[in-house]
Amino acid sequence: MTPAAREAIEKSDVVVGYTVYVDLVRDLCGGKKVESTGMKKEVDRCRLALDHALAGETVAFVCSGDAGVYGMAGIMSEVAEEHPEVEIETVAGITAACSGAAVLGAPLIHDFAVISLSDLLTPWETIEKRVRMAAEADFVLVIYNPKSKKRRDYIDKAAAYVSEARPWDTPCGYVKNIGREGERAVVCTLKDLVNNDDIDMFTTIFIGNRQTRVINGRLVTPRGYRGI
Amino acid sequence: MTPAAREAIEKSDVVVGYTVYVDLVRDLCGGKKVESTGMKKEVDRCRLALDHALAGETVAFVCSGDAGVYGMAGIMSEVAEEHPEVEIETVAGITAACSGAAVLGAPLIHDFAVISLSDLLTPWETIEKRVRMAAEADFVLVIYNPKSKKRRDYIDKAAAYVSEARPWDTPCGYVKNIGREGERAVVCTLKDLVNNDDIDMFTTIFIGNRQTRVINGRLVTPRGYRGI
Repeated sequence: MTPAAREAIEKSDVVVGYTVYVDLVRDLCGGKKVESTGMKKEVDRCRLALDHALAGETVAFVCSGDAGVYGMAGIMSEVAEEHPEVEIETVAGITAACSGAAVLGAPLIHDFAVISLSDLLTPWETIEKRVRMAAEADFVLVIYNPKSKKRRDYIDKAAAYVSEARPWDTPCGYVKNIGREGERAVVCTLKDLVNNDDIDMFTTIFIGNRQTRVINGRLVTPRGYRGI
Repeated sequence: MTPAAREAIEKSDVVVGYTVYVDLVRDLCGGKKVESTGMKKEVDRCRLALDHALAGETVAFVCSGDAGVYGMAGIMSEVAEEHPEVEIETVAGITAACSGAAVLGAPLIHDFAVISLSDLLTPWETIEKRVRMAAEADFVLVIYNPKSKKRRDYIDKAAAYVSEARPWDTPCGYVKNIGREGERAVVCTLKDLVNNDDIDMFTTIFIGNRQTRVINGRLVTPRGYRGI
């Protein structure tokens, strides 16, 4: 957690968030009001935060990672659209692309694309096109939501699309439970991402570009195409 | 600065970095050795850090933003390649894509691509291909190094490539001097990025996807394609 996030909680009158994340910051909440909602209740959670703000309170709306990357910052603005008088300030955090990259080494030293494989709100055709084009344009790929409870083959399909543009031995890596208990990083190849039961929905995956290599066990993308 | 970065400096025997960044953390350095090198001396700076590490010291190697995004984490691994006995730990920071997004609103709620327009180490053809394909695949684009001292038209060209796939009134934004004195954010359109003297080499640019819109002055990309 950044000092800015801590300060935002300290300055707030009420803390709102998903139950699990609110519990993680409860020791910072002192005597404040704390309100939480369950999973998949994102819109309800935003409305709860909005109601407190409309009552004149300063609300700290907490989520994990960076609220600005697949996070609640967007939906909060959408829910509050009819209330321009409510001031929204986003506090940046460290998203899994950055925290995971640090654990693996330095895979994001050159251009990269961040893609979620969840087709809950995005047609699979759009996801497929993005993976294919990012692979062809030689971006390093960072994959969020590589599997879901129902669908285990998202990442297998994505790896197959990438293989059309890059060899199966392309250096890759993945990190589980980033910044939490049980954090674990694995450096591997594109081939190793397929049929891999170690990868679950809480795993963030990094697929190297054509220059990425493994240096002393770390996944490293050089900063350019002309050597150091 | 994150608590982890602060702790890394506190635990170190010597602090190494580019002069300007070392000066920013000097009050944390206490009685430690502090060594700096000038701009464009990246390899020398890594060798300096490596020499101290080989002498058995713990080195805090500081840079701005996130060392893992176009930062020094990669080149440090490359320079230390012949010395696997030197342990390198990357401490993640908040890169301009994330800190800038927070200032503008919530532009990175869906898939995005991060591209540097600097052709110092990357052929322009590669950069052009990445911008075109990222635009066509409907990624939000985050542009680092939109201009250089010598070349003022990188961003003009990039905007033209994007315009082949998206309308000129696509919502965009840019942030200058993120997190520093003189921080300033502008929400605009793709057209406004062209021939724009307000954009300089220290500006980070955000180009919305086909769903991005402006809500109460904030640049917001919805999280999906089926509404909230």
